[in-house]
Order: sequence, then structure tokens, then C-alpha cells
Amino acid sequence: MLEESVGLGAVTVLAVLEQAYFSLQVIYARRKYSVSPPATAGPPEFERIFRAQANCSEYFPIFLTVLWTAGLFLSPGMSSVCGLLYLYGRLLYFWGYSESAHRRLAPLYFSARVLWVLIGFSSLGLFLTFCRVYLKLDVLLELWTAVALY
Amino acid sequence: MLEESVGLGAVTVLAVLEQAYFSLQVIYARRKYSVSPPATAGPPEFERIFRAQANCSEYFPIFLTVLWTAGLFLSPGMSSVCGLLYLYGRLLYFWGYSESAHRRLAPLYFSARVLWVLIGFSSLGLFLTFCRVYLKLDVLLELWTAVALY
Amino acid sequence: MLEESVGLGAVTVLAVLEQAYFSLQVIYARRKYSVSPPATAGPPEFERIFRAQANCSEYFPIFLTVLWTAGLFLSPGMSSVCGLLYLYGRLLYFWGYSESAHRRLAPLYFSARVLWVLIGFSSLGLFLTFCRVYLKLDVLLELWTAVALY
Repeated sequence: MLEESVGLGAVTVLAVLEQAYFSLQVIYARRKYSVSPPATAGPPEFERIFRAQANCSEYFPIFLTVLWTAGLFLSPGMSSVCGLLYLYGRLLYFWGYSESAHRRLAPLYFSARVLWVLIGFSSLGLFLTFCRVYLKLDVLLELWTAVALY
Repeated sequence: MLEESVGLGAVTVLAVLEQAYFSLQVIYARRKYSVSPPATAGPPEFERIFRAQANCSEYFPIFLTVLWTAGLFLSPGMSSVCGLLYLYGRLLYFWGYSESAHRRLAPLYFSARVLWVLIGFSSLGLFLTFCRVYLKLDVLLELWTAVALY
Repeated sequence: MLEESVGLGAVTVLAVLEQAYFSLQVIYARRKYSVSPPATAGPPEFERIFRAQANCSEYFPIFLTVLWTAGLFLSPGMSSVCGLLYLYGRLLYFWGYSESAHRRLAPLYFSARVLWVLIGFSSLGLFLTFCRVYLKLDVLLELWTAVALY
């Protein structure tokens, strides 16, 4: 199992590095706008960076969960590609939100769509595994056979 | 291992969908009470919904961690049932908190108790696995044998 | 795989218990300083405890991610030891932050350094697994052989 998961593992480490980058940006913004912990309120420029990081942190476990569920139950390759797209979308989201609240929207919708694709992959993978284990039915094989016979 | 984890995977995807539902409620509440990002302060009705979602997000990785630890080291079936109870409790918590701070309490205590059961399952599963691997001792088998002989 | 992961599982359950302890401290602080939910603003003493718990919660999924990536792809033993160090650092961080914002710094830097070690272990483990699976190259074995021949 570990052998097939190298790609998923690489995307996972990349996701952690991205979170580290976001955290550093908040530390720099705290210094720049003189907002000392534990305060989280400050000028809008600071609050946008703070909220961008908080939002990415909130979605980090959700993202990793569907990345691995889709990867293990359906396809590690397709999930890893979706994972890279998601992380790219989150980077654009962070940079966009740092500039203005409006600029966060397009990359937010993009990364949300990628998450839905991963949720779809996860559900499909779970359904196929369920059919194979409990109904002794290889749905994909049946489908290909039906198509070939047709 | 993947074969036994279909139930855990299904509960996991359900947990992600529940989080998506909570996030959407915050977006609707932001529109309804005119609280634009990055602001998080507003009328109490908004703040309750915002905090309900934040609290569920905070517990999401903790829940998934004990769900899978208990599921892999002890029993996927019992853990999945606990998982469904937890998600149901969190739904009641979110709806209750949206109405009043007091109404969040009963479902909060309920979902906390389910978490403690999952922590107990995890600890027991780790202890049994430790005995089997490092002490070459199948505690459950010994117990059943002792009971049968008695 | 499960057999090798008992240590990682034990550190994981310990991490969950630590989070439970932090959450309880916030509940006690809410009572002591009369800050009722959904409010999160209050006297500095309360806000420090609140932010300490929020920060630990934010890092909880990041920590577990690198703990398991390093543990599964490189070494469960070394990762578990790092995990214990991290949890100890977080405990000192929480206690320090409860007293003053300055006292959070030393344990924060310590736990951040442990995280970087785990990120390094993860990357190394992924690199070695990649070489073994895709390049049919056991880098460590080659290295030992080269050293032995030399």
C-alpha cells in the first residue's frame, strides 16, 4: 500500500509546507502592522491575512482527508493531481485575499470545486470497494465487459 | 486492510459533507446579517453560527483521528457506529447553538461522551495490539479461555 | 503495518488527550473570567489561554500528518520520539502562554523545530521509497555498501 502512496505522501508534505508559508506570512504581518499576540484584531490589511491563514488551516484537515480517501479507495494518481491543483488554488486564494476581500473569491471557488471532485472520487471509490467486498461484484469489470460485448 | 475500512471511509466522507453543510450555513449567515469577510464580529445570531462552525471544525481532526485509531486497532464496525452517533450529535449541536447558547450544551456533552468512548476504544485496541506484538500474548483469547474453563 | 504503528498510535492518543486538557482549561477560564460563548474577547488572561488552545488546535492536524508520514515512510520509532518531544513542547507552550505572551516563545520555537525535523524525516522517507519503487534503487543499501567497500 505504501508503495502506491508516494505521490499522496509528496502532496501531503507539500500541503504542510504551504501551511508553514502561510503561518510565516501571519508572523510578518503581525510585525508590520504591530498586532501583538494574543490580539487578532487590527487594520483590515492584517485581518485579511489573518483570516486567509485561518481559513486555509480550517480546510487543511478536510483536504487531507478527502485526498487520502480518494487516493486509497479509487486512484492515488488522480487524487495527487487534484491535490496539486487544490494547493495551487489555495496559494492564489491567500495572495488574492491579502490584496482585497474580493480577490479571494475566484480561487476560493476553484479550490472548493477541486474539493468536491475529491469528495466525488472518495464516494465512487467507497462504492466500488463496497460492491467488490460485500456483493462480490466488480462493477468496473462488469461495465467494461458490457461495453465490449455491445 | 482497505476492505475492512469501507465503513470508516463512509463515515469519514459523511463527516466532510457535514462540515461542508456547516460552512454553507456560515456563508448564508454572513449574507443575512451583513457581516463581510474578514470581519467575524456581528450580531449574536451570527456569532453563534460562526462559533458553532468554528468549534465543529476544531473537533473535526480530533474526531477523525480517534475514529480511525479505534477502527484500525480495535473494531471498524463499533467505531463506525460511534462515528455516526458523533456526527448526529454535532448536527444537533449546530442547530441548537444557532438558536441559543444554552441549547448547544446537551448535544455538546453527548458528542464529547462519544469522543471519550472512541478514545477508550483506541487505548484498548493499542493495548491489545501491544500485548500481541511485543509480549506475544493474545489477551482476549486468554480471557475467553479462562472464562470457558471456569 | 499496524504492528509497527503501535508507538505512533500511542503518541496519537496522547496528542488527543493533550487537546482535551487544553479544551478543559479554556472552559475553566471562561468560567473564571465570565466570558460566555459565543464571545471570545475578554481580559488578556482569558485571551492568552484562548489563543494558546486555538494555536495548538490549528497545529494538531499538521503535527499528526507529519508524525504519520515520517513514521510510515521512514521510521516509526524515531517519529514517535519526536512526537513525544513535540507534545511536551506544546504543554510548556500552553503553560507559558497562560502566564505571559513572552513566555510562549521559547517552547513555541522548540516545537516548531521538532515539526521541521518530522518534515525532514517525511521528505527523506518519501525520497527513499520513491527510489526503491520507481528507480529500483535501495539508496541506503548502496550507501552502506559504498562505505563498507571504502
